[in-house]
Amino acid sequence: MKSFQSLLVKMHEIYDLAKILKLLNWDKEVNMPVGGLESRSQQIATLSRLKHTLFTSSEFGDLIEQSKLETISFPYESFEASLVRCLKKSYEKAKKLSVDFVNREADLSSRARFAWAKARQASDYSQYQPFMQEVIEACREKAELYGYEENAYDALLDNYETDTKTKEVALILDNLKKDLVPFLEMILKSKRLVDDSFLYQKFPIEKQKEFAIQISKSIGYDYQRGHLGTVVHPFCTSFGKDDVRITSRWNENFLNAGLFGVLHESGHGLYEQGLDDTLKRTDLCSATSLGIHESQSRMNENMVGRSLGFWQKNFPLLQSIFPEQLQAVDANSFYCGVNKVKASFIRVEADELSYNLHILLRFELELAMLSGNLAAKDLPEAWNEKMAKYLGLKVEKDSQGCLQDVHWTRAGFGYFPTYTLGNLYAAQFLEAAQSQNREIMEDLRNGNNQSLLQWLRVNIHSHGKKFTPKELVHKVTSKPLTPDPFMKYVRKKYSLIYDI
Amino acid sequence: MKSFQSLLVKMHEIYDLAKILKLLNWDKEVNMPVGGLESRSQQIATLSRLKHTLFTSSEFGDLIEQSKLETISFPYESFEASLVRCLKKSYEKAKKLSVDFVNREADLSSRARFAWAKARQASDYSQYQPFMQEVIEACREKAELYGYEENAYDALLDNYETDTKTKEVALILDNLKKDLVPFLEMILKSKRLVDDSFLYQKFPIEKQKEFAIQISKSIGYDYQRGHLGTVVHPFCTSFGKDDVRITSRWNENFLNAGLFGVLHESGHGLYEQGLDDTLKRTDLCSATSLGIHESQSRMNENMVGRSLGFWQKNFPLLQSIFPEQLQAVDANSFYCGVNKVKASFIRVEADELSYNLHILLRFELELAMLSGNLAAKDLPEAWNEKMAKYLGLKVEKDSQGCLQDVHWTRAGFGYFPTYTLGNLYAAQFLEAAQSQNREIMEDLRNGNNQSLLQWLRVNIHSHGKKFTPKELVHKVTSKPLTPDPFMKYVRKKYSLIYDI
Repeated sequence: MKSFQSLLVKMHEIYDLAKILKLLNWDKEVNMPVGGLESRSQQIATLSRLKHTLFTSSEFGDLIEQSKLETISFPYESFEASLVRCLKKSYEKAKKLSVDFVNREADLSSRARFAWAKARQASDYSQYQPFMQEVIEACREKAELYGYEENAYDALLDNYETDTKTKEVALILDNLKKDLVPFLEMILKSKRLVDDSFLYQKFPIEKQKEFAIQISKSIGYDYQRGHLGTVVHPFCTSFGKDDVRITSRWNENFLNAGLFGVLHESGHGLYEQGLDDTLKRTDLCSATSLGIHESQSRMNENMVGRSLGFWQKNFPLLQSIFPEQLQAVDANSFYCGVNKVKASFIRVEADELSYNLHILLRFELELAMLSGNLAAKDLPEAWNEKMAKYLGLKVEKDSQGCLQDVHWTRAGFGYFPTYTLGNLYAAQFLEAAQSQNREIMEDLRNGNNQSLLQWLRVNIHSHGKKFTPKELVHKVTSKPLTPDPFMKYVRKKYSLIYDI
Repeated sequence: MKSFQSLLVKMHEIYDLAKILKLLNWDKEVNMPVGGLESRSQQIATLSRLKHTLFTSSEFGDLIEQSKLETISFPYESFEASLVRCLKKSYEKAKKLSVDFVNREADLSSRARFAWAKARQASDYSQYQPFMQEVIEACREKAELYGYEENAYDALLDNYETDTKTKEVALILDNLKKDLVPFLEMILKSKRLVDDSFLYQKFPIEKQKEFAIQISKSIGYDYQRGHLGTVVHPFCTSFGKDDVRITSRWNENFLNAGLFGVLHESGHGLYEQGLDDTLKRTDLCSATSLGIHESQSRMNENMVGRSLGFWQKNFPLLQSIFPEQLQAVDANSFYCGVNKVKASFIRVEADELSYNLHILLRFELELAMLSGNLAAKDLPEAWNEKMAKYLGLKVEKDSQGCLQDVHWTRAGFGYFPTYTLGNLYAAQFLEAAQSQNREIMEDLRNGNNQSLLQWLRVNIHSHGKKFTPKELVHKVTSKPLTPDPFMKYVRKKYSLIYDI
């Protein structure tokens, strides 16, 4: 095991650099003064280059090959075999991207993000169009560099959802759409009016934070190994499983943004904090895919945090913190309010159901742009058409249309579908958990997620990157991913709320 | 200039890594949850090793030598000649420390700091004594590795105050003591009682911050290129001249800790923010020594921030923020209160005068420990004797005695004297500034530091590390450092306050 031991030493070094890069980016969003941008970009570029050089060195490649021979008889699930398997795949992918491409991609992202922020401010897509063109071309070039068998999109998707093919995602989303669209229509036509006006009052931010911290603690996010920061675009990041940081934004006039933001991000945080100690300081000490990561945040935000039991338990505390604002509200109407369904323009503000149509739209547009069926100049029109078709909404300005997300400032096609995959994984995991341990359902009904968390720790979190998402779903639920558990979950929940 | 250009490219890379290390340390103090300590230590160790390897590579050494030849005809003050000179010195010093020593030193610091925190908590030096012994030995080993002509302490002092010798510091401190001790005695015997009881009231921390931010802005610290964080042990750090961060601690029951902490740190910040753009991303883009750095913080804290003009201008604002607490106080009595002189146990709480006796004591003890005249086991007794002699105080417990500072948890002898050197530099600089530009004195009398800041920018800040502290003092004040300007300054100020 001499090579494997040497591999581990190098792995630790590369892992440390990767985590330091995460700190550079986290600090950029949370603390950095505007003046720091130039030097921060230089620091990120320097460290990325160093890390890429170490990771793609032939020395490291040789160690992987030699370690593979040394661990050939190790069980598939063993730490050693899993690490070698995972590194071999990442190494081969990383080798395919030239340093020239990596530099150009970084440069494009930085220019495009700046232009996007300006265009979005002015709500004028035409300012951004040349950059969108460059992004499409960079996505194509990246797909070609990686290589693919069937669909160029496969090569990009694999970055976020390992070993998952475009046609599989398309089939899943198509099946989801068939059930979801008519159900959504029924809800939107329902005569039951759900009131959520009480969410739009003045809620002092310090009080919001106080509640969000208490509630995230109670669901198991560990602040001894965590930290809550304030940002414009919330995210969760980790500098090691014992330093996992969440972020949120706060809106003084709308309770949901901060509260469900923290519940969402602390779901991500639970995953990272729950990775097994044996995986520490290696590439296995990470979520297996964005979709699985998102399953944990969406489960925590929606299936736990937007459940009736949760608010029956926690509403009294919330009410005691905001006695004036919430004096006329009870737990049940609060529960209904935070689950109100309505067609809306902005993805991140969408309810649990229509959210997936926002994703479907983006997935279809990415496929069309990558294949050349949709040109950058025609994006707004195509976007607006789909919004009308899926959500019945007429987009009046680009800022509430195709300029709303930051994702298309990177060569990052393939990211969006993982959001909906996350919703579906979450429902399928929850169904399996409840069927394997009846206590979990009972506990959730009482607003207690600890038995569920325990199950997630053992079945999902602890494995890190040992299994691909497909392997994990099969291992845990004994079947491939389908939209059925999700539809079952939403039908049950929303039929009651909307009396249909 | 081919070699010089290559040197610059490598320099930028090494500089970026050095600044990233600073971020890792800053974040550790400001944001990191306790759980993050293990992974953070690993990250710091990995990056330090990488940086040390790049910096001490023979490739880098060769580039320095070749660049020296290429720039041989450049003026002494030129960017090129200064950078080569500065790098040659740092390179030769860095090469003298073996990787083994650097690792052992880092390990000792981390163990000793932990043990010190515990021992200080228990106020029990005996727990810390074995670590103090190790620290003394590490200091000796370091001095031997660096080498020296006359005094082992020279080798350590040079790390903090380049090209400054022990005997020079000893002479300066001795001269200072001769004048300071009798003057201090006169003050302490003075019949004029200075009231500072109003500083010890309840001052809500958010309000304190609000005022400190306003006041630090008004003296020129730029928050577009800055940031104020909260920590246990305040410091200033920089990740580039356009991202310079200060920190403070806050005490709800004592106004000075936060207020003068921020004035002190923002003085450091002004220096870092005022470095010349041409020096960016090189080792020249840094303070020339700790003593010169401290001159800027102490000048800002004491000569600007504890001046009568400053409070005549700013007291009304402070009073409007704390109307209840300060209703019975006026600008003049506030000025006297924040300058109250009293013998006290803790260095960081000491007044402007007795502060220097705290430093003298530490300097003498370091010399004795390094030369073998004082053993680790005898430190408390020696400390307490000197406290009685210099300040007339009987130390009752180690936590207010020899365990109070963190400095002796590192192989860092030579650091302490730079604090007093800073006080003396500050007075000598201020005297020169006022004699060169009469407006400065007039402006300070009106509580306006802008003409002084302008002078500091041109004469001190912009040069970065181009000149050694000695060269700088001579260039700016046309004489070597002496305690005379400091004594002149304090005699004038405190004679008035204490009516002597």
